[in-house]
Amino acid sequence: MATVRLLSDEEAGADALAVFDDIRAKRQTDYINNFWRALAHDPALLRATWERVQAVMSPGALDPLVKELIYVAVSTANGCDYCVHSHTAAAKAKGMTPAQHGELLLVIAMAAQTNALATALSVPVDDRFRA
Amino acid sequence: MATVRLLSDEEAGADALAVFDDIRAKRQTDYINNFWRALAHDPALLRATWERVQAVMSPGALDPLVKELIYVAVSTANGCDYCVHSHTAAAKAKGMTPAQHGELLLVIAMAAQTNALATALSVPVDDRFRA
Amino acid sequence: MATVRLLSDEEAGADALAVFDDIRAKRQTDYINNFWRALAHDPALLRATWERVQAVMSPGALDPLVKELIYVAVSTANGCDYCVHSHTAAAKAKGMTPAQHGELLLVIAMAAQTNALATALSVPVDDRFRA
Amino acid sequence: MATVRLLSDEEAGADALAVFDDIRAKRQTDYINNFWRALAHDPALLRATWERVQAVMSPGALDPLVKELIYVAVSTANGCDYCVHSHTAAAKAKGMTPAQHGELLLVIAMAAQTNALATALSVPVDDRFRA
Amino acid sequence: MATVRLLSDEEAGADALAVFDDIRAKRQTDYINNFWRALAHDPALLRATWERVQAVMSPGALDPLVKELIYVAVSTANGCDYCVHSHTAAAKAKGMTPAQHGELLLVIAMAAQTNALATALSVPVDDRFRA
Amino acid sequence: MATVRLLSDEEAGADALAVFDDIRAKRQTDYINNFWRALAHDPALLRATWERVQAVMSPGALDPLVKELIYVAVSTANGCDYCVHSHTAAAKAKGMTPAQHGELLLVIAMAAQTNALATALSVPVDDRFRA
Repeated sequence: MATVRLLSDEEAGADALAVFDDIRAKRQTDYINNFWRALAHDPALLRATWERVQAVMSPGALDPLVKELIYVAVSTANGCDYCVHSHTAAAKAKGMTPAQHGELLLVIAMAAQTNALATALSVPVDDRFRA
Repeated sequence: MATVRLLSDEEAGADALAVFDDIRAKRQTDYINNFWRALAHDPALLRATWERVQAVMSPGALDPLVKELIYVAVSTANGCDYCVHSHTAAAKAKGMTPAQHGELLLVIAMAAQTNALATALSVPVDDRFRA
Repeated sequence: MATVRLLSDEEAGADALAVFDDIRAKRQTDYINNFWRALAHDPALLRATWERVQAVMSPGALDPLVKELIYVAVSTANGCDYCVHSHTAAAKAKGMTPAQHGELLLVIAMAAQTNALATALSVPVDDRFRA
Repeated sequence: MATVRLLSDEEAGADALAVFDDIRAKRQTDYINNFWRALAHDPALLRATWERVQAVMSPGALDPLVKELIYVAVSTANGCDYCVHSHTAAAKAKGMTPAQHGELLLVIAMAAQTNALATALSVPVDDRFRA
Repeated sequence: MATVRLLSDEEAGADALAVFDDIRAKRQTDYINNFWRALAHDPALLRATWERVQAVMSPGALDPLVKELIYVAVSTANGCDYCVHSHTAAAKAKGMTPAQHGELLLVIAMAAQTNALATALSVPVDDRFRA
Repeated sequence: MATVRLLSDEEAGADALAVFDDIRAKRQTDYINNFWRALAHDPALLRATWERVQAVMSPGALDPLVKELIYVAVSTANGCDYCVHSHTAAAKAKGMTPAQHGELLLVIAMAAQTNALATALSVPVDDRFRA
């Protein structure tokens, strides 16, 4: 289905397998999702991406669930079907309620609509919005 | 600058002016930003958009600040410079701290990056991510 | 302003100038807009683009004004500010009324909104929509 | 397949079912397509979207078929496969001929190409194109 | 699966078949891929696209493999799954190594990330970058 | 102009200034471009981005100039004007000739065009293109 084969544990090299182990330990599940199996062809990229995702998505000034909602929003606007699915699932796992999902969709749709209007009208930025 | 002229209060028709008045009353400011002045050529669209934005962005299952962060994220992915500016300003007005802005940027950048990787690899969606 | 200099008539080579002459004759104006002056660095690309635009935008099964509306719609969705401006101007020159412009904006905004919803929900295509 | 389950008539609540009934009556068909079944989780959004689509796509200054062509163009540029399918089908139902479909594709492809050129060259907007 | 039927050799008209023959001769294979079978409904567009692709992708100031890498990069950013697949396959056929594929992914992901950051921050272009 | 102020050397904190020093040393120039001055509000992001760019864009299986061409292609498709300018300038600094620039534009435009056609036709991926 993909442009590269998804590597099984048996096919993955030692460096990739070490990342799989870390994913399993941190997420407390045996399941490795397809994104990581596709990245396993390039163990350095696999490790860098996994470590970066953990750092970016951990609790900080923004709540992890809020970060997932933002992730879904970007993925929708970029038309990434895989990422829409994986981060909607992640948001549900972090407690997103159906009502929150509904409002997320409303904001994404509203933004898409006014983005289109502002672009079609080429509205100049108000001075007061500039830093 | 725009593809239509921005209408001053004097140029706007009575229907558009009534929306401007409502914006002024609700936002407690005399200032009408350029987006509304561009939409004023079509008073029905102006009113529908203003009413929809209020309904969508009001407090609900998601906090108004969270909604602004999602709005900035979508606007960035859609490359709408006007909307990035106006909703970053709105987020600041609703209390977004520099640390929250920093984390918003991190999540947007991370999502853009993994969206690109998942698309370039055409990773198939895992069954467990499907509803 | 651009990534290449806009070539004046004096700077353009003979091949580019011949295209400028054709543009002037066909459009019955002396004015050469910036897009063609930027393309003039590559006379073969300039000629191919100019000839292709004429062939595609001429009357056929679709009316030239309808073609301009479609062009504005695509340019908006792609976020091309130059093209939004030039083709909105072309649509006006071909008779687009303010009411038509208003409806064009409505359809573009509606499509942007439902595109976002369908993508965020990853709605599967109904069998009856497939050819 | 989707990020939410498509609701059958039995699963949809009374509010959603009332919209399904209205769709069936207005379209004179029993078939409810997947987009509405996915939106049925949020009956208010379902109703608002259905009513807005009817208002926007009805005859006005632009012909309903022209509106469908514009919808297909935006959906293509936004990469929304569901919307490309559903609005291509709608355009055919409204009388789009193969020749018109062919010209629609030509204009979409031409616009995509010159959008890319204008963006890569960052061509500045001509003063005469500004309102 | 598509919005038009893929035409078999038997269904394609004489003009389309002549292009199929040229594709078979130039590529030294009997296989005609789906893109051309979908375009065969419009033989003029089929021919123009096939001839243009050959001209653009042939050796010149840039190497054909480099051109394929650029094609994959654009197709990824535009979210075109068909094109990502066909041009990744074409790049492999022209000698792209796994290491080159890995670096292509790294650059695409890096660009996606900094594109998002520059857009979210609306960084003004430095004078020295302008031609 | 931006959504955050560009920080001068005087305004940048010690951590950001250390990155500016490294940029100056590695690039052998005193000039710090606006992208880095905008990122300086978040020194950790500034450092991570600068280090990642260096690693990704250094010589490897792909030539640094080829990497810049890919970067320009992605930035064009994503509509990032800042990035189109900065990486076109970087490509010129690494030796991109006008003929190479012309071919880069041709490939970007060709890809944009066939991406649009494949998406509007929703062409199914050929089995032989799947890994």
